Amino acid sequence: MDEAYILNTFFALFAFVLIILMVPGFAMLEAGLVRTKNVTAVLTTNAMIYLVASMMFLLVGYHIAFGAFGSASMSAWAAFLFQMAFVGKTVNIMSGGVSERTRLVPLIFFTVMMAGIIYPIAVNLTWGNNFFAGTMFDISSMHDLAGSTIIHSTGGWALLAAILVIGSRKGRYKNGKVKVIPASNIPLVVLGGFLLWIGWFGFNGGSVGSIATKEDVETVALTIMNTNTAGLAGGLIVMLLSYISYKKFDITMVLNGALGGLVAITAGADIMNIYAPILVGVIGGILVFYAVPFFDKLRIDDPVGALSVHLVNGIWGTLAAAIFGTASFMSQLKGVLIVGFIAFSLSYITIFVINKISPFRANEENEIQGLDSAECGIEAYPEFNKSF
Amino acid sequence: MDEAYILNTFFALFAFVLIILMVPGFAMLEAGLVRTKNVTAVLTTNAMIYLVASMMFLLVGYHIAFGAFGSASMSAWAAFLFQMAFVGKTVNIMSGGVSERTRLVPLIFFTVMMAGIIYPIAVNLTWGNNFFAGTMFDISSMHDLAGSTIIHSTGGWALLAAILVIGSRKGRYKNGKVKVIPASNIPLVVLGGFLLWIGWFGFNGGSVGSIATKEDVETVALTIMNTNTAGLAGGLIVMLLSYISYKKFDITMVLNGALGGLVAITAGADIMNIYAPILVGVIGGILVFYAVPFFDKLRIDDPVGALSVHLVNGIWGTLAAAIFGTASFMSQLKGVLIVGFIAFSLSYITIFVINKISPFRANEENEIQGLDSAECGIEAYPEFNKSF
Amino acid sequence: MDEAYILNTFFALFAFVLIILMVPGFAMLEAGLVRTKNVTAVLTTNAMIYLVASMMFLLVGYHIAFGAFGSASMSAWAAFLFQMAFVGKTVNIMSGGVSERTRLVPLIFFTVMMAGIIYPIAVNLTWGNNFFAGTMFDISSMHDLAGSTIIHSTGGWALLAAILVIGSRKGRYKNGKVKVIPASNIPLVVLGGFLLWIGWFGFNGGSVGSIATKEDVETVALTIMNTNTAGLAGGLIVMLLSYISYKKFDITMVLNGALGGLVAITAGADIMNIYAPILVGVIGGILVFYAVPFFDKLRIDDPVGALSVHLVNGIWGTLAAAIFGTASFMSQLKGVLIVGFIAFSLSYITIFVINKISPFRANEENEIQGLDSAECGIEAYPEFNKSF
Repeated sequence: MDEAYILNTFFALFAFVLIILMVPGFAMLEAGLVRTKNVTAVLTTNAMIYLVASMMFLLVGYHIAFGAFGSASMSAWAAFLFQMAFVGKTVNIMSGGVSERTRLVPLIFFTVMMAGIIYPIAVNLTWGNNFFAGTMFDISSMHDLAGSTIIHSTGGWALLAAILVIGSRKGRYKNGKVKVIPASNIPLVVLGGFLLWIGWFGFNGGSVGSIATKEDVETVALTIMNTNTAGLAGGLIVMLLSYISYKKFDITMVLNGALGGLVAITAGADIMNIYAPILVGVIGGILVFYAVPFFDKLRIDDPVGALSVHLVNGIWGTLAAAIFGTASFMSQLKGVLIVGFIAFSLSYITIFVINKISPFRANEENEIQGLDSAECGIEAYPEFNKSF
Repeated sequence: MDEAYILNTFFALFAFVLIILMVPGFAMLEAGLVRTKNVTAVLTTNAMIYLVASMMFLLVGYHIAFGAFGSASMSAWAAFLFQMAFVGKTVNIMSGGVSERTRLVPLIFFTVMMAGIIYPIAVNLTWGNNFFAGTMFDISSMHDLAGSTIIHSTGGWALLAAILVIGSRKGRYKNGKVKVIPASNIPLVVLGGFLLWIGWFGFNGGSVGSIATKEDVETVALTIMNTNTAGLAGGLIVMLLSYISYKKFDITMVLNGALGGLVAITAGADIMNIYAPILVGVIGGILVFYAVPFFDKLRIDDPVGALSVHLVNGIWGTLAAAIFGTASFMSQLKGVLIVGFIAFSLSYITIFVINKISPFRANEENEIQGLDSAECGIEAYPEFNKSF
Repeated sequence: MDEAYILNTFFALFAFVLIILMVPGFAMLEAGLVRTKNVTAVLTTNAMIYLVASMMFLLVGYHIAFGAFGSASMSAWAAFLFQMAFVGKTVNIMSGGVSERTRLVPLIFFTVMMAGIIYPIAVNLTWGNNFFAGTMFDISSMHDLAGSTIIHSTGGWALLAAILVIGSRKGRYKNGKVKVIPASNIPLVVLGGFLLWIGWFGFNGGSVGSIATKEDVETVALTIMNTNTAGLAGGLIVMLLSYISYKKFDITMVLNGALGGLVAITAGADIMNIYAPILVGVIGGILVFYAVPFFDKLRIDDPVGALSVHLVNGIWGTLAAAIFGTASFMSQLKGVLIVGFIAFSLSYITIFVINKISPFRANEENEIQGLDSAECGIEAYPEFNKSF
């Protein structure tokens, strides 16, 4: 009995640490993808999110989702830390997609609301206390192991709401053309991408919740294997599509393809055989490859491809858990729709209201000069001559 | 019985690995904070410290602290590795604060002495064999879970001694003004900061020393949660102070605030409730925010803010374990004073003597040109045009 | 019984995660060592290797090596993941040594063959099903804990074959002189070096295969301690040699010395006392220090020193397991020779044939311009003015 408690606590702490590697992971990925003049602002945003979101979840959010601290199968504090590690991700997804034009102060307000209320509501209805239990809105039968819908789509819907309010970067769409804005630091993109990948092992593996029996630990190992396989498949298909389309290998697209596969397997990694994730990931990668230019066609400007990776694949992955796994398709669809409705509408209202009080959009001069000087007063690489 | 031994060994190895992440953590943080011309020297210093300090601790230091290899509750080798992971940190604290002006050879000699003798003496008197047991200098009743005093203050006192001997960087204090020297690479600062943060979970969590009972694993989880909370609080308060003071968010200060909170919680994370670390961290962050300019007023030049983070908060944290936890205030104060006296005096003498044999201070020409060419013959980024 | 199964599975997953840290580890190390114009290509190659090699091992390679999925002592999926984490390393060793002149498409073909067939054959004969069991070619009595021969030499022999086919970088050897080509980003080199080091704890510690008894976990802890000690010793001796020879500290050589020590201890870390690894590492470091210029004398151009680190020390380490440990010298030598013969000849044939279909060598114009634009269409740092 104590044995199980100890093992589950230790494993949750292990998983927690892996997920925290995603904090520098997201920060490096985004710092590499934006232009040099916005790098410090992006990094500061990432640090802010970890600080604000985690503290809000400790003080408010956890209790909305789960009630009092506690867990029968492991230390209450390990259970808290594991859940806390998730919360910032929803804001990371949103902030990444509106970077290079967004002020920090309103982002802080949004982080407070997302981590304190919006995300906890999504958790309450699914992994948590379930306020809607027994009503027609009850979605607790959705199988969403580690949050294809609850985390990734929630963040993605918030991002969509934010882009609708904030608009696209200056000069991104001119005379009907999409101006390519190259990533400023590719090693950081690759480092960040793989730190996220490693964090995903903790995310999905830890979400099984127990290693205390042979069956549980088997499920944990299967989950981590399937997670990895979907990431591989997502990256591979985009590598192939990139080469077929351009005769070049676009590493930023390949990594986004892998991340798309990882998002897609997040709902059902524990309820599939070891080959299904190949298909889940391949479709996830294809979705990323075609969604990125599609959003640009709609003039929805998302510098890091977060909508394609997290929203599109969050939906796909939740359905895939029924198509390739043992989940019920209708339960999955219902969950996608209800969480999507809640996440989008609450985020939109929140962003709309904050925007009236403290506008998200940086002024034109600051956007052209770069947000680093206006928001942070610190250049990312002050000693290098720049050509842009 | 074997069960406990296995679990404790595994957990110690896990904690050890987390702490080793602090090796690249410190290296990246410092490489980002100094000017481009000194980046390779700083990185080389960090690698040197891990090599020299760890080897000295294996051959000499461990035995001064603990006697023969061995541990009743886990593998002797896991116990050694866990302790070994700590030793370099004391030198990292010192070397970071005297970077951009200090030669490597005398730093090697100092590392030999610190890891071989000075730090082991501090450990001997507290976590170790306790040479002073039963005398009036016995400080074994100080509660210092993972070394607010034993590691962070010890390193901080050594740094203070070093700055007194070595002096400030050329041009730092001119005509009564402090010349701001901007950090050269902010992504590295953020990466390093979060690698340190993650390492801290191993540092403090592993210091509980056992996960073999339900109570022990509960304490481990509480310790990691409290560690994280204090880091959050330290970062948040500095974010707020930074915005109030300058209308900007200074990410390097925010990270130092978080590190200050982490140092402060290191003594008593295991003996507080889950809300006290918020206050410990807030006060830690405030101390960093005001100590950094205070040391500059005293013309004590510390390019990475190590005195504010490690010495000031090492002292604060040790006392906080009595104020907010269950430790005895007088025992804590006595420990701070006796370890402080030993660490400062032994470090000062050591640095003074080494300085006679092989001067710490680089000559003026090398300092102006940057230490990378003089000490290492390798530029950090040889292909980029620089504007400084 | 279940207890052991759970602990072994958890530990294998822990070790797996550490090894995956080597993916960004290798990527950062190599991205830092090559010139800016080839950084994206090197990073893309590293990502490609993880994607292709891991997928090939899942679909083909694992079965050649071990037959059906399965393990008596832990989850089959954890056992698979741990083995899968190894496979890309052999290709990393090869690709790193031919970087700055090699096209990606033939590297993909080679990765398919190496991860699908060549490496699995080496594993089959040693850790695996042993096709040669009972014949005169049976080398299963070689003690190669985590692959000094099976991984590092195999990768090294493949690299030697590749360099013979592909040749050296343009301008590297001119008028009988070796042109020094400086590393472009030293922080990335240091970050990558330490991520590899940390990965090694999982590599070697996990290869013990069990933590389920007191003896097993003791061996695991000893193995990790010895691994670290050899790395320290390899780095220290090169630091000393570098200073004696040039009065400077060459951090790239110091890290290669440490990696040499780590490779050398990989065969026998589990069967030595705690002081022998100092000698294993010192000799490993010396070998790196003198092998690097030696290969240049032979005009074998290896931009990252992979032959010296992996091939030379792979052989040395396998023999050292007999000299300093309890392995049989003749068994070790026989293993080195037979695996070497198989790895070199199969790699050479594979590379020779691929080279006819899709030449490895980039054309002269692309090599001079840098592979980033030709192969990837993406510059690593597009906004910085460059002086090369």
